[in-house]
Amino acid sequence: LTGEGIPGPPAAAVVTVGDELLMGESVDTNGTWLAQALARVGLAVVGRWVTGDVPSEIQRTVRSALDWAEVVVVTGGLGPTPDDRTRESVADLLGLALEEDEELLERLKGRFRARGYGHLPEKSRVMALVPAGGGVLPNPLGAAPGLVLETPEGRLCVLLPGVPAEMRAVFLDGVEPFLRFRFEDRLQGVVHRVIHTAGIPESLLMTRVEELLAEGSHGVSLAYLPDLLGVRLRLTARASREADDAEARLTRVEDRLGPLLEQHGYQAETGDLAETVGRALLEGEETLAVAESCTGGLISKRMTDLAGSSHFFRGGVVAYANEVKSGLLGIPEEPMMREGVVSEWTAKAMAEAVARKLQTSVGLGVTGIAGPGGGSPEKPVGTVWYAVWHQNRIFARRELFLGDRSAVRARAAHATLWMLLRVLEGKDP
Amino acid sequence: LTGEGIPGPPAAAVVTVGDELLMGESVDTNGTWLAQALARVGLAVVGRWVTGDVPSEIQRTVRSALDWAEVVVVTGGLGPTPDDRTRESVADLLGLALEEDEELLERLKGRFRARGYGHLPEKSRVMALVPAGGGVLPNPLGAAPGLVLETPEGRLCVLLPGVPAEMRAVFLDGVEPFLRFRFEDRLQGVVHRVIHTAGIPESLLMTRVEELLAEGSHGVSLAYLPDLLGVRLRLTARASREADDAEARLTRVEDRLGPLLEQHGYQAETGDLAETVGRALLEGEETLAVAESCTGGLISKRMTDLAGSSHFFRGGVVAYANEVKSGLLGIPEEPMMREGVVSEWTAKAMAEAVARKLQTSVGLGVTGIAGPGGGSPEKPVGTVWYAVWHQNRIFARRELFLGDRSAVRARAAHATLWMLLRVLEGKDP
Repeated sequence: LTGEGIPGPPAAAVVTVGDELLMGESVDTNGTWLAQALARVGLAVVGRWVTGDVPSEIQRTVRSALDWAEVVVVTGGLGPTPDDRTRESVADLLGLALEEDEELLERLKGRFRARGYGHLPEKSRVMALVPAGGGVLPNPLGAAPGLVLETPEGRLCVLLPGVPAEMRAVFLDGVEPFLRFRFEDRLQGVVHRVIHTAGIPESLLMTRVEELLAEGSHGVSLAYLPDLLGVRLRLTARASREADDAEARLTRVEDRLGPLLEQHGYQAETGDLAETVGRALLEGEETLAVAESCTGGLISKRMTDLAGSSHFFRGGVVAYANEVKSGLLGIPEEPMMREGVVSEWTAKAMAEAVARKLQTSVGLGVTGIAGPGGGSPEKPVGTVWYAVWHQNRIFARRELFLGDRSAVRARAAHATLWMLLRVLEGKDP
Repeated sequence: LTGEGIPGPPAAAVVTVGDELLMGESVDTNGTWLAQALARVGLAVVGRWVTGDVPSEIQRTVRSALDWAEVVVVTGGLGPTPDDRTRESVADLLGLALEEDEELLERLKGRFRARGYGHLPEKSRVMALVPAGGGVLPNPLGAAPGLVLETPEGRLCVLLPGVPAEMRAVFLDGVEPFLRFRFEDRLQGVVHRVIHTAGIPESLLMTRVEELLAEGSHGVSLAYLPDLLGVRLRLTARASREADDAEARLTRVEDRLGPLLEQHGYQAETGDLAETVGRALLEGEETLAVAESCTGGLISKRMTDLAGSSHFFRGGVVAYANEVKSGLLGIPEEPMMREGVVSEWTAKAMAEAVARKLQTSVGLGVTGIAGPGGGSPEKPVGTVWYAVWHQNRIFARRELFLGDRSAVRARAAHATLWMLLRVLEGKDP
């Protein structure tokens, strides 16, 4: 794999450690994420393993993985409990003595104090142990840091914590920059571009895409990735080492898809429509208030997931009981009961009332039947009315969302944000 | 592994084949399912692999798995397309010639006719090929059957189709009965029990558990499974062959952990604390209202995720801007600004105000700094005050939650629900 003429991209393997993964009690999402991340950086993923918490099995697996790959990423088993055996097992396998790292120990102690737990328990000290010569990758979200070890043959063994958010953070902050530096000119990225779409089902999207790309797709392959909230369209081009025109080819294809994207696409780095909506609100110096019934706080939650949302989000009312709609929002009860709690009138009244109460330029109102109970022949489970009030203009739509309670809620929140984006962009909502 | 005194349960390994799995574009749910199924039947799962569609890598992986385990189950790559290479690769590895099975071929042809597709395409004939001496496991849901091969050393290699429903059907109809027959008295089932905990970090939990189990754990092994919101404690007992008292031993250990569980454990089928809180609210005929600042709707969202939440959840206010705290909730501005928006006084005022406004028996108030901005030396990012108002009693706590914005929000919501549960259960919050 190394040193023969022009070396190809480094081979990488992923090992996830944990009895609960091995026995199938948890799904190995860490392994999936890491394989994707390594491929994105430009390594060639050649194998994945799942192993239990037993040192001899960890060692056998890591040994095997190091035979196959130049870079082995191991996740899980770095914590302080007796079933966390990865650190010692791998150190032992590689013949490296474990040494206590002063700085790391101080950081652990500080962490414990900061949380008000008093002294660091004796057992937690293992998290300050570093195999001789190993590099430490700080963990911004938890106690156990990542570790980078090198074998005498120059292969790399990276140990990461198993808590998914921590694993991802240590990879992105520490491992990825390190791999980019170390393998610089050998990385051979598969370049992806993901286009997010909303308001169009997969089969129609595919038909439209095929029409627009009838003349060819410039060696760019397409994948349709549907989920509850929409369909992501993934464009993939493999970077050639001679001339890296992969990005240019992707752009050519994206340009050809222009008319479709104008109508159904949105740009979001995180893939979250809320990000796009937040940006549009900021740019338009708009302020937002939300009145939710069936979505029960989900829209407010999605908007306040965004850092800096206090610049545009003022507040919301979760009007679950009818008395809250009339009481807190001041919606008159008589017309609401006449028109129906799930109705165009009520959705519009909620959107306008919350905007006026909270003195914002935009108000959202959502009312519907998320199920499993509460449906009727005229208004079956999944029926949702949603409305956008924007500076004295108002828009509303009724939809029947399919799926279970959580799907209906997720889709209703998404559709409401999509309508808001269209309104803010001055397009036909 | 075999033939040495009384042999233990047969070691099993799972190999899933597919580029999309290896590269992390699909999650390996087949591997998870098979591992669970094998453990349930009573084999000892010792390793799992994911490999790509390349014959040499399939062979290397299966070879490796056969070194480790007496039973290797391979799934994927048995279909008719060019990237289906498992059958030929494994036959070649084991030195077995592929022979066309007459009966299988007739069944395939009949299947094709029955679906109105006319003649069996030439390429589909590969699905009638069986390695010499191999057993055929009918596929009730699809075209490609499962295959059972035996190595000269008496190890078993089972090949299953990769379509999840087909894989499961062939396993349940063919593989499981075969394994039960073949290994009869060597099978040894594994029984699990999961205990959810909150409000205690992993290392302290472990110390407490070790104290409580100082006299021994009755052959029950323990695993600590931490995530952002708490630590799950998993008890595992292996059924002994003499008398299957595994459940009794689990109960004995759970009883010994009683004092700890009384303080930090909760029962939730879904594992979600909101479920437990919802049940407690229903049982106590309580009603809930929520006033959230930094959690931005997350608590309302979590409570209304539950079907039937309208029986106890009346509504919430997302008081993001200060004017919403004073305006909608009627919290007097002067003391709030004096005590601080993030303060015990404000959290308590929010909890009480929302309960009175919405006429509920319980009110929650949460105010804090989720970050990344807004921190100060006295109130760093992660500082959260949360309060529970319950029928004229009020409780509040300040915590410093670590992690990024989303971790702080998730932890603050969880801690608030945990305090609420303690209050509802009449325990010291």
